[in-house]
Amino acid sequence: MNSPTATLLVSCADRQGLVAKIANFIYSNGGNIIHADQHTDLAAGLFLTRIEWQLEGFNLPREYIKPAFNAIAQPLQAKWELHFSDTIPRIAIWVSKQNHCLFDLLLRQQAQEFVAEIPLIISNHPDLKVVAEQFGIDYHHISITKENKHEQELKQLELLKQYNIDLVVLAKYMQVVSADFITQFPQIVNIHHSFLPAFVGANPYHKAYERGVKIIGATAHYVTPDLDAGPIIEQDVVRVSHRDDVDDLIRKGKDLERVVLARAVRSHLLNRVLVYGDRTVVFE
Amino acid sequence: MNSPTATLLVSCADRQGLVAKIANFIYSNGGNIIHADQHTDLAAGLFLTRIEWQLEGFNLPREYIKPAFNAIAQPLQAKWELHFSDTIPRIAIWVSKQNHCLFDLLLRQQAQEFVAEIPLIISNHPDLKVVAEQFGIDYHHISITKENKHEQELKQLELLKQYNIDLVVLAKYMQVVSADFITQFPQIVNIHHSFLPAFVGANPYHKAYERGVKIIGATAHYVTPDLDAGPIIEQDVVRVSHRDDVDDLIRKGKDLERVVLARAVRSHLLNRVLVYGDRTVVFE
Amino acid sequence: MNSPTATLLVSCADRQGLVAKIANFIYSNGGNIIHADQHTDLAAGLFLTRIEWQLEGFNLPREYIKPAFNAIAQPLQAKWELHFSDTIPRIAIWVSKQNHCLFDLLLRQQAQEFVAEIPLIISNHPDLKVVAEQFGIDYHHISITKENKHEQELKQLELLKQYNIDLVVLAKYMQVVSADFITQFPQIVNIHHSFLPAFVGANPYHKAYERGVKIIGATAHYVTPDLDAGPIIEQDVVRVSHRDDVDDLIRKGKDLERVVLARAVRSHLLNRVLVYGDRTVVFE
Amino acid sequence: MNSPTATLLVSCADRQGLVAKIANFIYSNGGNIIHADQHTDLAAGLFLTRIEWQLEGFNLPREYIKPAFNAIAQPLQAKWELHFSDTIPRIAIWVSKQNHCLFDLLLRQQAQEFVAEIPLIISNHPDLKVVAEQFGIDYHHISITKENKHEQELKQLELLKQYNIDLVVLAKYMQVVSADFITQFPQIVNIHHSFLPAFVGANPYHKAYERGVKIIGATAHYVTPDLDAGPIIEQDVVRVSHRDDVDDLIRKGKDLERVVLARAVRSHLLNRVLVYGDRTVVFE
Repeated sequence: MNSPTATLLVSCADRQGLVAKIANFIYSNGGNIIHADQHTDLAAGLFLTRIEWQLEGFNLPREYIKPAFNAIAQPLQAKWELHFSDTIPRIAIWVSKQNHCLFDLLLRQQAQEFVAEIPLIISNHPDLKVVAEQFGIDYHHISITKENKHEQELKQLELLKQYNIDLVVLAKYMQVVSADFITQFPQIVNIHHSFLPAFVGANPYHKAYERGVKIIGATAHYVTPDLDAGPIIEQDVVRVSHRDDVDDLIRKGKDLERVVLARAVRSHLLNRVLVYGDRTVVFE
Repeated sequence: MNSPTATLLVSCADRQGLVAKIANFIYSNGGNIIHADQHTDLAAGLFLTRIEWQLEGFNLPREYIKPAFNAIAQPLQAKWELHFSDTIPRIAIWVSKQNHCLFDLLLRQQAQEFVAEIPLIISNHPDLKVVAEQFGIDYHHISITKENKHEQELKQLELLKQYNIDLVVLAKYMQVVSADFITQFPQIVNIHHSFLPAFVGANPYHKAYERGVKIIGATAHYVTPDLDAGPIIEQDVVRVSHRDDVDDLIRKGKDLERVVLARAVRSHLLNRVLVYGDRTVVFE
Repeated sequence: MNSPTATLLVSCADRQGLVAKIANFIYSNGGNIIHADQHTDLAAGLFLTRIEWQLEGFNLPREYIKPAFNAIAQPLQAKWELHFSDTIPRIAIWVSKQNHCLFDLLLRQQAQEFVAEIPLIISNHPDLKVVAEQFGIDYHHISITKENKHEQELKQLELLKQYNIDLVVLAKYMQVVSADFITQFPQIVNIHHSFLPAFVGANPYHKAYERGVKIIGATAHYVTPDLDAGPIIEQDVVRVSHRDDVDDLIRKGKDLERVVLARAVRSHLLNRVLVYGDRTVVFE
Repeated sequence: MNSPTATLLVSCADRQGLVAKIANFIYSNGGNIIHADQHTDLAAGLFLTRIEWQLEGFNLPREYIKPAFNAIAQPLQAKWELHFSDTIPRIAIWVSKQNHCLFDLLLRQQAQEFVAEIPLIISNHPDLKVVAEQFGIDYHHISITKENKHEQELKQLELLKQYNIDLVVLAKYMQVVSADFITQFPQIVNIHHSFLPAFVGANPYHKAYERGVKIIGATAHYVTPDLDAGPIIEQDVVRVSHRDDVDDLIRKGKDLERVVLARAVRSHLLNRVLVYGDRTVVFE
């Protein structure tokens, strides 16, 4: 785990020899593969793979890996990414008034359940500034109204640039992010407090209570312009009964939101998530 | 379990002394309560209870219990039912072509997981006649088309009368039952192969696959004219991943359909389910 | 929820009229029952009940309820407790070096998921003093060795008296509490990081990994002199696979420990747990 | 799925180039890989892989694949197996008196949830002969006593030879198989009705009830001379409460036994299970 690794995420049209081609690229350069996962979506005729190898003893200098692999990827018209485990991603957490997901992510980072820097918290309310201070993180209160939304989003984008942010985590931000924003900053993970696609939109727990469901859920997904319709990364559920009123659903749901969002963020940060169409492949 | 019991299901506006009133009615007649469950829906201001007591040593003859309790229930404007454990309910199972839920229910009845007679199987296809014969149950093939639906439903109702059926179980019947039918025979439990309210209607597994969910579910509910919107009795879920194609979802889902439908049927037969509005109280 | 309530927990040999007797006691004094749960353990011939009613409008002054109910309970040779919802229980949290359960309980109390005061944290290590300070709670570092265990436990007992503690929560305390201590202070809830009775004792995650289980669990139980054999309040599990090494089991297990301990503490504080023999009845 | 495939299961000491070597072997012979899974147990320094490719268009005739791959495997001192998807494995199901797992496996085979022939059922009781007849399967009643166990096991082995059996499934056989037998026929999957290693041996549900657990489980594992200690293939659990007596545990457990055994048998038949030490890798 300690010595740095490189990870390739590749997706392309399925054809013979893909595993061999990629494995040979690493082997022929003296790399030792520690994880190799493949998936073939037979319906879509798509091949997806994640390969991680130790950089120690790898003959190619880091800066040459990209061009070298490009020579393989281009003829395959492959979509691909390269990541180094010692390049620490930078996260901005966006919150509203609830602190449970924020605390959860900050404590997991402290406990090194995932490796990332969290230099920035953005909120449309001042309430959680105290938590940010507790953890020594900059807190920017940017209140959003129908009128000022566009200009405020420009401020938010400015901050993401300024703090050199790789990933935005909407930890119960409770606001819709505009399509424009997403186009300019697409790396956004959101936690929705329902078992999507059930109960899209606002007040899912109230809707779940009204419907009299026996199980509630939470869903972590990438944000797309189509509300609550982005590619799902992780979901989980918990049983409820007639004894649970809306407040109980909210309380039980908070435990789901915490773990589901944390698992999704961790999988993303470990480069285990590949998106294609509206779907994800998550290599556990 | 062995000596016969009586069970009262009561729901009425909440007020002081309801538990005492009902408990006294049984105690003052020498009844020994073996199960007493209450639920108060504070939002709805509704009190719901299930009380079961041993008939052995109960001073009131069976035929006098109804009138005697009515004297208590009427002033409360209570909705209530009385059931005797040795009155065996009669079930009609409706199927299409899939046999897994049918076999499951028949084997559970054989294993006495619930107490009921199953004298009648109705299907819009001839395929499962062989299963009916295997278990010595009458099988009626009533094919349904847009044109003949009304007259065929009259035949179905006729059969339910003829076989003196108390409960219809739609064990993957794959047909919509008309509002007229439901009005005339409201005691219908259906298994829907999704985690309702997600994926209402046809082909839920295909829709779930398209949406890329990480968990699929099944839902047992009472049938109402509003499709897949009836009061939910039981739900359960199973985890899926990108490795599961539609056929895998269908295969995994069948195990859910089996157990979810069986639990719902059993709870109904044990008179543990109270319906109010679109919701159920299920006293486990 | 807001107006204060009284809760009776009663267990006694099963006999006719128990529900009526207790309900009448409350009704005849003008009490409005908001929750009534019963359970009869037919094998043990034991009746257990939890009844909660609003004190508003109840004719008996609080100080008279105990003697009045005693007149009913004595002839039944019943074990019983009386609790008032506005008497806030006081908790001491005992920890070692891990902070996840401690943070979790403190944040849940802040979020009012349960109502209790937490004036005292005791640890055999200094590490978590910073967390105590963060939340303004007294932190006592009492290091334990084979040699000093007895005298240190006397110090611990002294602190529990001094802080007027009702419940000790072992939130990953990682030490065995002596039988003497338990005799003098029996109200102790512990979280064990395995699906008891599997993997009793130390290093359950390592043992689980060695055994190659596909599911790991956590167990919250009352502490008894017999190690990890106390009455179980709550358990939950999570799926693992060959991809999870011991560190992954520990990481996944921490999420279980958090929620399982929190649920158990909450149920205890809401007076929903009755213990008989080595078993519990938890009225959800 | 339809066109026949070959599957290699390989485990050996981890070293550079293993993925490349194996992938090249298939690619260089014109094979199209449809599934490739690897796992490296870093602690054990062991590499395990499962690779499946289409035989259509593969240049090596079937009978040459083994020797050809052996030339690669030998220098690696690899343990390996080769399977063809159109070689249908033959199963003997061993039962005692309970029919739920037997029916379940037979119906799943009928529904083609897995591909296998089931020509033989062996039991120490005559009770389930009727089920065997219903499905047209030979049923051999071989009663076991302390005295005759050895000779009866010889009869059983004789039958396995005679019916050319590849896998024995103990579907609630409720008998211990001797070490001698296992040595001569090691391919045995058993369903144990507890969450192993909790409640090893007889009457696990009674033990679970006594212990007052809140969750029960079932475990499918390969049989080894050490009772209930064999490599675990699959486990699952279900929640229980104080309301569940031993009979309820048994009833709820039967649903677990069914699905857990079925999943394990299916994974084994799809050659997705690799055993090393007391552990399994199950490539989902």
